[in-house]
Amino acid sequence: MCELYCKKDTLALRRKHIGPSCKVFFAADPIKIVRAQRQYMFDEKGEQYLDCINNVAHEVLKAALKQMELLNTNSRFLHDNIVEYAKRLSATLPEKLSVCYFTNSGSEANDLALRLARQFRGHQDVITLDHAYHGHLSSLIEISPYKFGKGKDVKKEFVHVAPTPDTYRGKYREDHADPASAYADEVKKIIEEAHESGRKIAAFIAESMQSCGGQIIPPAGYFQKVAEYVHQAEGVFIADEVQVGFGRVGKHFWSFQMHGEDFVPDIVTMGKPMGNGHPVACVVTTKEIAEAFSSSGMEYFNTYGGNPVSSAIGLAVLDVIENEDLQENATRVGNYLTELLNKQKAKHSLIGDIRGFGLFIGIDLVKDPQRRTPATAEAQHVIYKMKEKRVLLSADGPHRNVLKIKPPMCFTEEDAKFMVDQLDEILTVLEEAIGAQTESVVSDNTPCRTKMPKETRLELLSEGAPDQKENPSQKRNGLRTDKHSLLSKRLKT
Amino acid sequence: MCELYCKKDTLALRRKHIGPSCKVFFAADPIKIVRAQRQYMFDEKGEQYLDCINNVAHEVLKAALKQMELLNTNSRFLHDNIVEYAKRLSATLPEKLSVCYFTNSGSEANDLALRLARQFRGHQDVITLDHAYHGHLSSLIEISPYKFGKGKDVKKEFVHVAPTPDTYRGKYREDHADPASAYADEVKKIIEEAHESGRKIAAFIAESMQSCGGQIIPPAGYFQKVAEYVHQAEGVFIADEVQVGFGRVGKHFWSFQMHGEDFVPDIVTMGKPMGNGHPVACVVTTKEIAEAFSSSGMEYFNTYGGNPVSSAIGLAVLDVIENEDLQENATRVGNYLTELLNKQKAKHSLIGDIRGFGLFIGIDLVKDPQRRTPATAEAQHVIYKMKEKRVLLSADGPHRNVLKIKPPMCFTEEDAKFMVDQLDEILTVLEEAIGAQTESVVSDNTPCRTKMPKETRLELLSEGAPDQKENPSQKRNGLRTDKHSLLSKRLKT
Repeated sequence: MCELYCKKDTLALRRKHIGPSCKVFFAADPIKIVRAQRQYMFDEKGEQYLDCINNVAHEVLKAALKQMELLNTNSRFLHDNIVEYAKRLSATLPEKLSVCYFTNSGSEANDLALRLARQFRGHQDVITLDHAYHGHLSSLIEISPYKFGKGKDVKKEFVHVAPTPDTYRGKYREDHADPASAYADEVKKIIEEAHESGRKIAAFIAESMQSCGGQIIPPAGYFQKVAEYVHQAEGVFIADEVQVGFGRVGKHFWSFQMHGEDFVPDIVTMGKPMGNGHPVACVVTTKEIAEAFSSSGMEYFNTYGGNPVSSAIGLAVLDVIENEDLQENATRVGNYLTELLNKQKAKHSLIGDIRGFGLFIGIDLVKDPQRRTPATAEAQHVIYKMKEKRVLLSADGPHRNVLKIKPPMCFTEEDAKFMVDQLDEILTVLEEAIGAQTESVVSDNTPCRTKMPKETRLELLSEGAPDQKENPSQKRNGLRTDKHSLLSKRLKT
Repeated sequence: MCELYCKKDTLALRRKHIGPSCKVFFAADPIKIVRAQRQYMFDEKGEQYLDCINNVAHEVLKAALKQMELLNTNSRFLHDNIVEYAKRLSATLPEKLSVCYFTNSGSEANDLALRLARQFRGHQDVITLDHAYHGHLSSLIEISPYKFGKGKDVKKEFVHVAPTPDTYRGKYREDHADPASAYADEVKKIIEEAHESGRKIAAFIAESMQSCGGQIIPPAGYFQKVAEYVHQAEGVFIADEVQVGFGRVGKHFWSFQMHGEDFVPDIVTMGKPMGNGHPVACVVTTKEIAEAFSSSGMEYFNTYGGNPVSSAIGLAVLDVIENEDLQENATRVGNYLTELLNKQKAKHSLIGDIRGFGLFIGIDLVKDPQRRTPATAEAQHVIYKMKEKRVLLSADGPHRNVLKIKPPMCFTEEDAKFMVDQLDEILTVLEEAIGAQTESVVSDNTPCRTKMPKETRLELLSEGAPDQKENPSQKRNGLRTDKHSLLSKRLKT
């Protein structure tokens, strides 16, 4: 009824007219979604999927419609919506973060944040975290190791990559006496080395919790120490809240606030859930930085940024978060979900780590809990099996082995229970298969790869998430190891 | 009734919470617009303004609402809207331009166009036109002489600036035997020089008609020749249609099509009017370039780009253009308006040139028709006086002396007549004042600046369009010359 084309034709048209670099989820069998309601999505056959991926949904229809009927124009005219929205957003932030620039995407926001930082003291260099992703624009791919490692791009000389403060799989782990200081000292070292070679640091940028990088939660105290070093170097601290802001962590409206009141970034960028899918994003900074930018003499004009409709939608989203008590919901459901997942961790050796806050949780799958070897192929298998069970999950991180949970904020305890039950079933069958398979491998002592029927291998290879084909080494890492290549075959027999 | 704050408070909140680099129109007395209908805008007092500025308005409410009620999600799921929209857009373009990438702004589109071009053959350098403006992102300010001349930015070594093919005020004028070849040869020379210093050209980028640069129409044959040279250098031709596409020129859907069927760009970017104010934009390119981009291994993902709501709105805009015959309207009203303006040109020595196609017209104001000296202060005066008469116009170009006409596509002949009548009155009074003043200046032979009461000078200085304060040399150029500094005073007495 909502379809214009049958799925086959949609796919064909997509292949013909949409850039092949734009990947779909579940490439081997993509989903066609025609309708959604709160945390549920429906395909062309009316099948219902539980959405644990789309962190951008609230109900704001009425506000959009009302403003669209009245007026939409650019910010070169005075309008109450943009100033009201700026005022409301500022009120959620520490006092010194009071000046807003509205854009249409998190990427535009991060690009502007870099421009603000670079104009501030005239410095150029940027320190970014390993595996970080900050957007799809040229200037952001430059500072996104998640991206520039792939493709033909290489690290530019003005970019410095600090180790991700990952206490599970990183350089300094939970058994380290003071991982926060150890990781911050790495940033300090980078600054010193930059200074020695005559370079100057404009900014340190990090997501308050690293999302694409594998749902990483920096240790307490890390940001404070980094900010201290960066400020000493006359740089600014940019907190990227595009994926992790707007109450998702529950207790706080912004994720960086979890680090305590003595930590205040100089620039905060926000986007994604901000407009319930409507393209609206923002940079908030201090008066001092804004004035430095302005005094450079260059105007900033963004045709759609902060237009009356976008602002009305943004305001409505803030209202919904407040009126539906979505932060409290994120805390309650998030705690419950974490509790359920920790029970799963005790039960399944494939789960190496459960980490997160509120409705931002990572499930780190490992082949071996001691060695913490990323279970990449298993994670891909799990997300495809979850899809069969009508639950939408994605896997990410440098090894693509971390199940990312960042559902719509209206996610319920029943949804959490349902999701975990499905995961439990899948992991149980999977672990049995791996166990059986390991025995089988041991018993006949022959490389499994050569024994697997061709079609099974192909199926496995084509099943990966969108990015997978890009990196042959990742494909090998897991998918072609002897131990797991038989996975799918065994599961089907 | 539609106001949340009185105008004074709106202004105060704007000063407090919105970045000072974000300028308003008519800085001295900005307009607060609360409602709009087709080509009319209404301020908080209900005053009606004729809109000759906002090139982004059609009626597409119903489509937006319908899709918002159903679903909004990202392009990682299959959806008919995005493929239908891509198919419809491709159908408006030459056959080889068949692959689309959807973004949220013309800036995002131009950034992606550069990435596509740079990946294609691995080249880096970009040739851009003088005074060009291609967007507000870091990568675009680099290639926008309109921007990087201001601020602290300087031209990067991989950017080459070719002279604007302006046959009215440029290097080669209408009296030149073959200005198209002469301007194209300048590009050829740049390519040769780049090659000599070991550099490689990735792209030539130009608006099909230069908008912010002063409503410049390249001479026939120019683009063909440039494309030939750029292709020989293994570069690509990017046509920026963000401000000038979607039927605005009347006879053709895209402005570059005015140059004949033997000219086909390799990449076309589009935005602004595309979504009736909704943030939607697009890059269209060839299969070959798209595949080269994809084979680089880097995924392109734009959270909101091409989402079902944006695509539905884009489709509705295409429908409206077709159903309301807006291209035919642009031709008819545009021709009529040009005819009226040419009569004004015969009447007023301040009008040096009338140029344009359809509803994209420039009125080049000059102090002296022979020397073509830009009448910067006069242009600022005119747009403020037009505002008093409830007509919204802007002045642009490197000298800020070109009145830009690019109204909503539903602009009527009555609107055109009304606009020209107001302009006629203003120019008549202004020319009388200049005449009187010139005599007065001549007669008492004293620099007028020193004689002008302070408040009048301040008023004039603060009246400039948003960008004006940025460039003291421009401020002097006109506003402080002896001849015109008394302008406003005389007009008021």
